[in-house]
Amino acid sequence: GETNHPLHAGSWGKMVVWDEEQFQGRRQEFTADCYDIEACGFPAIRSFKVESGAWAGYEHAAFQGQQFVLERGEYPHWEAWSGSNAYHVERMGSFRPIACASHRDSKMTIYESENFLGWKGELSDDYPSLPAMGWSSSTVGSFRVHSGAWVCCQFPGYRGSQYIVECDRHTGEYKRCLEWGSHAQTSQVQSIRRVQQ
Amino acid sequence: GETNHPLHAGSWGKMVVWDEEQFQGRRQEFTADCYDIEACGFPAIRSFKVESGAWAGYEHAAFQGQQFVLERGEYPHWEAWSGSNAYHVERMGSFRPIACASHRDSKMTIYESENFLGWKGELSDDYPSLPAMGWSSSTVGSFRVHSGAWVCCQFPGYRGSQYIVECDRHTGEYKRCLEWGSHAQTSQVQSIRRVQQ
Repeated sequence: GETNHPLHAGSWGKMVVWDEEQFQGRRQEFTADCYDIEACGFPAIRSFKVESGAWAGYEHAAFQGQQFVLERGEYPHWEAWSGSNAYHVERMGSFRPIACASHRDSKMTIYESENFLGWKGELSDDYPSLPAMGWSSSTVGSFRVHSGAWVCCQFPGYRGSQYIVECDRHTGEYKRCLEWGSHAQTSQVQSIRRVQQ
Repeated sequence: GETNHPLHAGSWGKMVVWDEEQFQGRRQEFTADCYDIEACGFPAIRSFKVESGAWAGYEHAAFQGQQFVLERGEYPHWEAWSGSNAYHVERMGSFRPIACASHRDSKMTIYESENFLGWKGELSDDYPSLPAMGWSSSTVGSFRVHSGAWVCCQFPGYRGSQYIVECDRHTGEYKRCLEWGSHAQTSQVQSIRRVQQ
């Protein structure tokens, strides 16, 4: 029979980047963490393709700053892609593969308040609008990820700032806003979905 | 037993808008189409809440220009929300309720080429990455919506330009790019999901 092995970050996935738009210019492939793209000789990434796996991209080196989930597909113009983030991001400074569980095994608990206090909600699906699912607040105080990787978004419909929370990081426990996004000014979270492998 | 009645656009949902940020200033409720928000005495909407239903917002009056799906939740700052769209949109000029089917009844066929030609794919779920689901192109040529309302996005992860396609409009048939987004410069579509009621 088939066994589902958890994937390990850094051991899977393929991402190809170029220093010019439309997949032109200097090209480099990655199959593991890139801690600092400038140190790889790229002043900036202007286009990229995710060929397999799901990746987390970051505004700055060392996995800092605004986060964005990058799923399989083509991103021919940095400017057009970046325009769809919470604020204009000049460049992607670092990126790494995300370890995902299978969709049907992904589980997470969200809490009204910091430190796993207040009302809670159990999630095992995609939620383009938490308020529509009965969550009576536009914020989330803390997250406990039981399995899988999730992307939490500021606005309904998976728009605005994104925060990636993972079973395999922080032991899956995100007690307060600063733990899921160091740049986050707000705990506003109105849509949540599983990251697609 | 329970019967699922299709909802009719214009007959359901509630949206409240304000002319200042953070739900301040002049307030107005809508339960049906708003063809021109300026004609309602609002030079601009600076914050809004979707209290029920799903709505389609448009950059210009008369349901023209960039489109965005608005699901239940709070949108306290126009600038922050607009920053997550494909390009900066100064204001929302018009909006209308979207008629959705229940999630499990939503069905659509996508085609490689215009006029329902080429390879096709049958959709009945949410697809954060069409390439990951085996669609071997970063574009879609035409759509035939059998039931429900769907949002098609330029990039994986439901990012970039959005196009709303509905069973109840165009008789569900969108033969070419110009029919789903008059402002669209591209038929790049890499993620698709059902609109949440």
